[in-house]
Amino acid sequence: MPPTLMKARTGWSARMRAGQSFRVIDVEGGQAADLWAFNVEDIDEYHSAPHSRVHMGEVYPRAGWTFVTNERRPILEFVEDTSPGRHDCIGAACDKVRYEQLGGGSSHGSCEQNLQIEARKHGFEVRHAPQPINVFANFRVRPDGAFVLEECVSEAGDAATFKVLMDSIVVLSACPQDIVGFQPGGPTDMAVEVLD
Amino acid sequence: MPPTLMKARTGWSARMRAGQSFRVIDVEGGQAADLWAFNVEDIDEYHSAPHSRVHMGEVYPRAGWTFVTNERRPILEFVEDTSPGRHDCIGAACDKVRYEQLGGGSSHGSCEQNLQIEARKHGFEVRHAPQPINVFANFRVRPDGAFVLEECVSEAGDAATFKVLMDSIVVLSACPQDIVGFQPGGPTDMAVEVLD
Repeated sequence: MPPTLMKARTGWSARMRAGQSFRVIDVEGGQAADLWAFNVEDIDEYHSAPHSRVHMGEVYPRAGWTFVTNERRPILEFVEDTSPGRHDCIGAACDKVRYEQLGGGSSHGSCEQNLQIEARKHGFEVRHAPQPINVFANFRVRPDGAFVLEECVSEAGDAATFKVLMDSIVVLSACPQDIVGFQPGGPTDMAVEVLD
Repeated sequence: MPPTLMKARTGWSARMRAGQSFRVIDVEGGQAADLWAFNVEDIDEYHSAPHSRVHMGEVYPRAGWTFVTNERRPILEFVEDTSPGRHDCIGAACDKVRYEQLGGGSSHGSCEQNLQIEARKHGFEVRHAPQPINVFANFRVRPDGAFVLEECVSEAGDAATFKVLMDSIVVLSACPQDIVGFQPGGPTDMAVEVLD
């Protein structure tokens, strides 16, 4: 299938079978996407950043990573990356309260809201977004422990490819962050390509 | 009240009012405790490491930190620390599957199990432990992204004091990890002192 456009600030989701893959494409560059995967058989089992960090012994997702669930079972494999390789799984998803606290008002869209909208399409509710995989998010831990939200360095057309390892609801959100300046192009479109 | 002994490998919990404090004491040294706090009015709101890391702009908890919930509201303040100051909020709590994968069998106690036991005393169920505050856990992020579980450096009698900022169920677990060697003394007793 050709890539599906994911318009700036919006979400995308699909029910995917184990063995399928999908490519997350940064159409214009400098844009991050939040990614989640939920076990279709048990929606309370989902990709877990805390367990994946321990499983991999690393904190920055990269091609070669296997993400495990909160039951420590493999759910996603990061199989290919044409970007400079800066991705995060430490920073929380943006949400309504985040934008209120940043002075963005109470009607600002968020990755958590996009997840909630997409989850409802598949018949489940998410109150609080689990820690996402922040694809193309250049968030770094300094040696002194500072956690800095550096600008995305992905370029137009860069793609990160993930293989689904258990039947999953996969959700993406083109991050609508326009106050904290880590998306130098401002919120832009992304695309996703499902590979069979 | 005098400190309460928390025997090696076991948990402790209390319903605490906003304004109360508690000290987590490493009785023999080299031992970590997992810590959680849940809003008594809404048990699905709890201390969130992902949101706290963004709130503080840091990844290593230290005296001076305010921990926020998954609603980004203050729930705990880390007010005093007599230890060398090595604490974590990146590594998942140990659980049944972790010990099975480490070859520890299926009946090994875990911090997640201790949380589940303590939660039931207060009338709620926890299926998956949220990312804990790992008090005295010397887990570090290397510049290349490696996440290393270094040995605890807390000494006998070291204490970390937290102030509760909203009425909370506070849960502690004396970590029973005896396979991965970050607790040089092996699992030992801890103690907790509630301060009014």
